[in-house]
Amino acid sequence: MMNAPLTVGSMLEHAEKFFPKKQVISQTHDKLHYLNYKEIGQRTRRLMSVLDELGAQKGDRIGTLAWNHHRHLEIYFGAPGIGAVLHTINIRLSPEHIIHIINHAEDKILFIDEDVLPLIEKIKDHLKTVEAFVVMTDKNELPESGLNPLYSYEELLNTGDPSYPFIEAIDENEPAGLCYTSATTGKPKGILYSHRGIVLHSYALGLADSAGVSESDVAMPVVPQFHVNAWGMPFASTWFGTTQVMPGPRFTPKRIAEFIEKFGVTITAGVPTIWLGLLRELEQTEYDTSSLRAVLCGGSAAPLGIIKAFEEKHNIPFYHAYGATETTPLVTVSRLKSYQQDLSSEEKLEERARQGILVPGLQMKVMGSDGEAKWNDEEMGELLLRGPWIASEYYKDDRSESAFVDGWFHTGDVVTVDAEGTIKIVDRTNDLIKSGGEWISSVDIENAIMAHEAVFEASVVAIPDAEWQERPIACVVLNEGASKDKMKEELIEFLRPQFAKFWLPDDILFFDEIPKTSVGKFLKRQLREQVKEQYNLQD
Amino acid sequence: MMNAPLTVGSMLEHAEKFFPKKQVISQTHDKLHYLNYKEIGQRTRRLMSVLDELGAQKGDRIGTLAWNHHRHLEIYFGAPGIGAVLHTINIRLSPEHIIHIINHAEDKILFIDEDVLPLIEKIKDHLKTVEAFVVMTDKNELPESGLNPLYSYEELLNTGDPSYPFIEAIDENEPAGLCYTSATTGKPKGILYSHRGIVLHSYALGLADSAGVSESDVAMPVVPQFHVNAWGMPFASTWFGTTQVMPGPRFTPKRIAEFIEKFGVTITAGVPTIWLGLLRELEQTEYDTSSLRAVLCGGSAAPLGIIKAFEEKHNIPFYHAYGATETTPLVTVSRLKSYQQDLSSEEKLEERARQGILVPGLQMKVMGSDGEAKWNDEEMGELLLRGPWIASEYYKDDRSESAFVDGWFHTGDVVTVDAEGTIKIVDRTNDLIKSGGEWISSVDIENAIMAHEAVFEASVVAIPDAEWQERPIACVVLNEGASKDKMKEELIEFLRPQFAKFWLPDDILFFDEIPKTSVGKFLKRQLREQVKEQYNLQD
Repeated sequence: MMNAPLTVGSMLEHAEKFFPKKQVISQTHDKLHYLNYKEIGQRTRRLMSVLDELGAQKGDRIGTLAWNHHRHLEIYFGAPGIGAVLHTINIRLSPEHIIHIINHAEDKILFIDEDVLPLIEKIKDHLKTVEAFVVMTDKNELPESGLNPLYSYEELLNTGDPSYPFIEAIDENEPAGLCYTSATTGKPKGILYSHRGIVLHSYALGLADSAGVSESDVAMPVVPQFHVNAWGMPFASTWFGTTQVMPGPRFTPKRIAEFIEKFGVTITAGVPTIWLGLLRELEQTEYDTSSLRAVLCGGSAAPLGIIKAFEEKHNIPFYHAYGATETTPLVTVSRLKSYQQDLSSEEKLEERARQGILVPGLQMKVMGSDGEAKWNDEEMGELLLRGPWIASEYYKDDRSESAFVDGWFHTGDVVTVDAEGTIKIVDRTNDLIKSGGEWISSVDIENAIMAHEAVFEASVVAIPDAEWQERPIACVVLNEGASKDKMKEELIEFLRPQFAKFWLPDDILFFDEIPKTSVGKFLKRQLREQVKEQYNLQD
Repeated sequence: MMNAPLTVGSMLEHAEKFFPKKQVISQTHDKLHYLNYKEIGQRTRRLMSVLDELGAQKGDRIGTLAWNHHRHLEIYFGAPGIGAVLHTINIRLSPEHIIHIINHAEDKILFIDEDVLPLIEKIKDHLKTVEAFVVMTDKNELPESGLNPLYSYEELLNTGDPSYPFIEAIDENEPAGLCYTSATTGKPKGILYSHRGIVLHSYALGLADSAGVSESDVAMPVVPQFHVNAWGMPFASTWFGTTQVMPGPRFTPKRIAEFIEKFGVTITAGVPTIWLGLLRELEQTEYDTSSLRAVLCGGSAAPLGIIKAFEEKHNIPFYHAYGATETTPLVTVSRLKSYQQDLSSEEKLEERARQGILVPGLQMKVMGSDGEAKWNDEEMGELLLRGPWIASEYYKDDRSESAFVDGWFHTGDVVTVDAEGTIKIVDRTNDLIKSGGEWISSVDIENAIMAHEAVFEASVVAIPDAEWQERPIACVVLNEGASKDKMKEELIEFLRPQFAKFWLPDDILFFDEIPKTSVGKFLKRQLREQVKEQYNLQD
């Protein structure tokens, strides 16, 4: 067979040739744009020539701090299109983490949304490698800014070459993307995505039994483009000629509902918090959502109630999926097998609330304390993954060693597997809290609290939250003689300048002691139970 | 990303794990078998240990001369599963070609269906490399045979190890399959299929917009397994946990119709001749074919009438596809784009009678006499293909040079492309005739006829045929003084021992001269018109 590499650029090229008329509908700060793939292709080619002009070389990292819109889509293809690396940066992280990420990635050029400019201006003196800033604005004039040099995206594109070619002579194992994820402790860790991984992942998304993304779909990824490739939706949708709807900056549940109705969205993807918001909106106002054939939900486990409300109340098919930044991300999709259609509706719901079965192309192993766990839905173990779109390491990071062992990625998720091969996440081995689709490091908050002079020790655990899935609660043991009076408020104020707002614990509970293992480690599972008891919460 | 190779074995492993209960229903000479993927997996592992025991090494060619059944399916995975090469041999070829193919491939072991045994016995003394023959029989006793050593498939499997592992440490570019295709002249040419190519091709078959093969399907490939991987259906169906129905040896249209009804077949694939036969059967007897969601038709262009009859008369969705032995084979599928649903039913039919658009993962180019042909449905050119499941050469064959040029496979098919990127085959650059899905070399027949002492020159052309799509007609100029009396019968008898029966011309026409180009080449296009006039045929 021919030695033809799988490349990200070739996916957009396919759309240019075979789906030139199909549309990308994009909400930006100021307006709604309608472009087709022919135009997206030409604009991306212009962008590639601009990147070239700005000095971007093969392998250079191109950072983005942006919402979901067509310009961000163009960079998705444009950066890998010249052999550079698309580096999507989570704009919700703390300034300290964003500085670290940009410097660690050594981003050469930053593409920034208008509303993110103030943040970047504040941190600009800490950025060591950035040589150019590009603001993605609809306006004719550049905003006032201390960033230098600062360019306008559209002005640059006007100077570009609409027939600039996509790179062809590139090893498919070369990096095309980069994304950082929060760590149990310390700075975020980077994951490089290869051209090969992204293309194979796109095939997986197009399979009838996973997301089945197709030409006749109207896809609206609600998951931010700065989160692990927007779950690969922009790549797959472009390749397959799918109409794309990009909901733009700071969208509300109302806009999501309106766009579904207005553009006849057939498939959308996001975290449970988003779908909870949409449910509320659907209860307040009537929308025609009959076009929806699939709502994909991942990032955290969706409560049974959400699934039920979508399916039974609104007749919207709702699918659980599972993945991680390290996995590009699609790992499992929860779909009933044909012979499971005979189950009772209760049984079906229970089955569908699980995380699902492995997508073709990956391998899994569940390691319990005594070797591989049996697939009996009882034995628990950590989920290990292997495959062409599973990371093999963290980018220039010593912490790779503990997560990538003997060719397997250790997810930190504890699962059971039933006889159908369907996984269910039952716990985590690590100490991350997932709130509204974003990670919070419990260890980082613990360390910060313990730096307070009144604190003897502190442990932070997650409690379930109807809206955010999980929220952090700090459990604190004060030093002898320290007073609890106003201590809660004092500790929160103490933490405030150090973390993004959503990292701050919802509550601080005071304990006489924190349960520990024999080797002195916090017994978080037991502590979590105690905290839940205090709040009268049930699993 | 991890360095995880794409391997054929991993596809069956996926089915064993996630679809152990799903069924393969297989018709053999003596009975109907029901096996599930757990059993197919264990039997394939037994087979692998048997191959190992018989001395098969990585890279060795394992030949099959067999129909569509579960044992053949097991070899599909078992041979590549140990790193050997599955070599499917077309049992319809002439003994001379089969001898050549087996010797050229240097097959080490041959797996043979019972009814093919007599053929192999006849040619056994010409086979230079075969060390073992295995007959795939349901019977307890081996048939009488002069083949030596001759084994029974089931007896061998009884001795095998049901937990023998699939090879993992293999370069995905290593060969997994081999299939020979007829040449314009001379011996058939071999094409090696890589693990990578077969896995990527399977993804393509699973895409919602191509065949959308899924777990909920019941797939019955009618195309023989000795034809280019049965169009990849057994690989994709197994990987995705699809129920498979294998129609077995020498099936009739009646059996096809019965199986569709009995097993609720949802997707099937074959050449136009098969579908013509099925249509006749459906007209004579009533069957419930409502389960069918897709009939894939390839190998030759299907006449508009067939498409119309399937869709309008029987309400069975009918899809044109295009490919070749050199292309694994899927290249295009003809599906309407979403916005084409508004076309009139006449326009839709016309569009769907075209060969369709390129499957994601491949690249095409149409080379006319003055460079690339425009996509205006008028300019004609030869279709050139490139991609990870397109061959880069013929196996150990000097003829590679002319077909594989500058990284492109020259298909020999002349096409036009419309603005939608949909190709339509309008002619062939080479001299092959396609009859009932099998190739006939016009040049080989010409050369044979010209060896007759009474013949001055001969040219063989195809005429359209309602049942077989094309049939060969020989146009002969006799030597001066030679008599036409009984010459037709004499020439046919002269050809009979040299060719498979279906290669013999349907008619022999006598001409005074054959139209030629200025450099003395037969002007086949013009000759074909003259022949068609004689028969009052229209395009």
